[in-house]
Amino acid sequence: MRAEALNIITNSARKFINIGAFTRLWNLVKNFHAADIASLMHQLVFREKLVLFKTITEKEKEKAAGVLSELDPEDAAQLIKEYKVEQISDLLEIIPSDDVAPILPFLPDEMKDSILAAMEKKPSEDVQELLLHDEETAGRIMSTEYYALEENTNVSDAITAIQLEGDVESAFYLYVVDDQNHLVGVASLRQLLFSRPNTPLKEIMTTEVISVNTETDQEEVARSVADYNLVAIPVVDLEKKLVGVVTVDDVIDVINQEATEDIYKMVSLDKTDRIKYSPLRSIRKRLPFLLISLLTVSLAPFVVHFFEGTIEKYVKLAVLFPLVMALGGIAGNQTIAIMVREIALGEADWIKARKALLKELSVGIGNGVVIGAISAVVSYLLFKNPYLGLILGLAIIINLFVAALVGTLIPLFLRLVRLDPALGSVNLLTMCTDAAGILAFLGLATLFLPYLS
Amino acid sequence: MRAEALNIITNSARKFINIGAFTRLWNLVKNFHAADIASLMHQLVFREKLVLFKTITEKEKEKAAGVLSELDPEDAAQLIKEYKVEQISDLLEIIPSDDVAPILPFLPDEMKDSILAAMEKKPSEDVQELLLHDEETAGRIMSTEYYALEENTNVSDAITAIQLEGDVESAFYLYVVDDQNHLVGVASLRQLLFSRPNTPLKEIMTTEVISVNTETDQEEVARSVADYNLVAIPVVDLEKKLVGVVTVDDVIDVINQEATEDIYKMVSLDKTDRIKYSPLRSIRKRLPFLLISLLTVSLAPFVVHFFEGTIEKYVKLAVLFPLVMALGGIAGNQTIAIMVREIALGEADWIKARKALLKELSVGIGNGVVIGAISAVVSYLLFKNPYLGLILGLAIIINLFVAALVGTLIPLFLRLVRLDPALGSVNLLTMCTDAAGILAFLGLATLFLPYLS
Repeated sequence: MRAEALNIITNSARKFINIGAFTRLWNLVKNFHAADIASLMHQLVFREKLVLFKTITEKEKEKAAGVLSELDPEDAAQLIKEYKVEQISDLLEIIPSDDVAPILPFLPDEMKDSILAAMEKKPSEDVQELLLHDEETAGRIMSTEYYALEENTNVSDAITAIQLEGDVESAFYLYVVDDQNHLVGVASLRQLLFSRPNTPLKEIMTTEVISVNTETDQEEVARSVADYNLVAIPVVDLEKKLVGVVTVDDVIDVINQEATEDIYKMVSLDKTDRIKYSPLRSIRKRLPFLLISLLTVSLAPFVVHFFEGTIEKYVKLAVLFPLVMALGGIAGNQTIAIMVREIALGEADWIKARKALLKELSVGIGNGVVIGAISAVVSYLLFKNPYLGLILGLAIIINLFVAALVGTLIPLFLRLVRLDPALGSVNLLTMCTDAAGILAFLGLATLFLPYLS
Repeated sequence: MRAEALNIITNSARKFINIGAFTRLWNLVKNFHAADIASLMHQLVFREKLVLFKTITEKEKEKAAGVLSELDPEDAAQLIKEYKVEQISDLLEIIPSDDVAPILPFLPDEMKDSILAAMEKKPSEDVQELLLHDEETAGRIMSTEYYALEENTNVSDAITAIQLEGDVESAFYLYVVDDQNHLVGVASLRQLLFSRPNTPLKEIMTTEVISVNTETDQEEVARSVADYNLVAIPVVDLEKKLVGVVTVDDVIDVINQEATEDIYKMVSLDKTDRIKYSPLRSIRKRLPFLLISLLTVSLAPFVVHFFEGTIEKYVKLAVLFPLVMALGGIAGNQTIAIMVREIALGEADWIKARKALLKELSVGIGNGVVIGAISAVVSYLLFKNPYLGLILGLAIIINLFVAALVGTLIPLFLRLVRLDPALGSVNLLTMCTDAAGILAFLGLATLFLPYLS
């Protein structure tokens, strides 16, 4: 839904909620896609959300379940907390298990257990199966709804079996297993239309099935789906038995989530730090990092302190060192951004570090020489001191070199030790380039001091 | 393919290429998925790439075409330039038009025209149709391969028609049109399996079809596919006639591309600035921005220059102002990152600016008070001057306030004037927080100067 339309609808919904016009509220939203109702919910405050959700639940349980699937898991959990266990288990039963699993960890343990106990056996077990796996793995995000049949089944029986099983919304492939449930092949449902009724599946299936296992990291799952242009990827357990599928809509969520994480981790933000949550929550999340930053950025004053005597003799130096600091930070952030994305897209790792490093160092020196030379000339024209210009130019070249070196190595090193390559990298870089820039500039200035003042 | 496996295969491929063992080279890669061969190509230098690609072309044209589809368009164009027009048009004919279109703009105009002239009529026209639309629109990235049938066709005839048309790899839906080719409905191919042979399509189709038009921005296309959990979205022209579909694999490419762009634009990098390209190219791409940065970061020295007299009287000030600068930059970058992602995910715009602004300002003041107080106390303990501590603390609070203000407004404003919200935002922010931090700190210091020295 477009932003303008959404704003108009939000205003109407808010009005109906406030005057208690629940039938009109229902008429407003009843033909909307669940995803659009979820977008509408995002615009409302909690009390309004709850009224809207209760109205939908009373009128059409399936719609309410669909909305719950589309909400952020944390938001969905907030709503659920306001309901009785029996009401909520009724809703959760009809939501795909991979949409229920992310919600439950946000509920109090006791409530979670009661809900799982109150749900029907099959959906409850499916959800519990997912929760056994680590967060951000294929086993946690997989769907347990898919079509799988034994390899000797013929096409005609396969069609009947699928018809009996009912419509599975996001199933586009038919997986083929042996009698032990090992994944042996895949056919698209489309292929069933093309094949003679009495052909066994093993004759029409593709045997080169791309699959992941339950412990595969979700980022790797997403990369496989993207690389091989799939709309779903089967998940097998450690014995190669088929246990689920990850569908492309979940992969898109993963990619969006990981992209947000990449940007957020570069500046050390928590991924759940959103505008919609309270300032107090954000302060609590950001303060620890700012406190660490306070330590790391203190390296720069420490270096300046060391050169206080030099500045006292020639105060113009205090005017120029911020320039060297800032340019190093800007160039270094560019290198960090490149490395973080190349690593995320699987194009850079420690093994290829030398290539990346040589490249970025060359760029750093190249840009450093140009920017340094211009700065030197401008500063000479302003301050009429050739030595000051020379020192400034050299310090900029040195700092752009340091920026390239540190900017390349921080993300690669973080990746090597299995941390996120973006994790606080901008902060670490700032610490290094600030200190190195000041050290280079004020250090050179101290050496050339007789020629400056 | 995993990084370790890829490295081993790259080494073998390189060896076979260098000793001219082309049959062994072919045997190495012949069973690989085209996407894996493309990953392998990424590891090779151009001369090696060319040998590998020629080997594949000679052995199996379809495989070579598949590889060309999977390569970055610019890399594919590089290879194509080494071929004769007739050879290359043979390959491009069998590649989906939406994979050919991005490659052609990287070729010299004359070569592009000759290739389009040499290709068969239908694929050539399909590609030209795509090239009529602007870059980054639905019309440019859509595929012209899909199933569409008239609404009165019955299920049995529909299945026959699809069988006659042949297998379209990424088609999972059957679009339903009226006799004027207006899009009126959609059915999944799966639904054909469920329906009686003599039912007309208009009885089984869903009439609420989510579609985009040829001019829709690709980012909005991606958002629709993601929000509504689709695997393809139909594209209509301005008369609502069906002209193509965008499939989810292209949507994933768009999302990855836009995520890279978000990060890159924050630090003003060109989206094609990759490790694999030459340093000279990257220097050329980054220099203009660094030159602009040189201007923007010069605001800080200018402000310091204004307070030279104050620093001369109390040189400790030069030690502390970098701290105020750095903290403002760090906090501001967090706000920018949040705004850029919220805007990208469609959760923030100018209309909701007040909410975002209030939130970020509260966080800025809250964090400012804590960090400012700590800094004040520590600086008092180090320098034994309560006024210096007070000034430092106040300056930090002011700068974190400025960081929140500017960090929220820059992306929203850029978006309002239809520029990318991330465009150079970090650079603009640095300029503001550096200058504001120095101004606040040295300004307060000048006021309190009698109490300092």
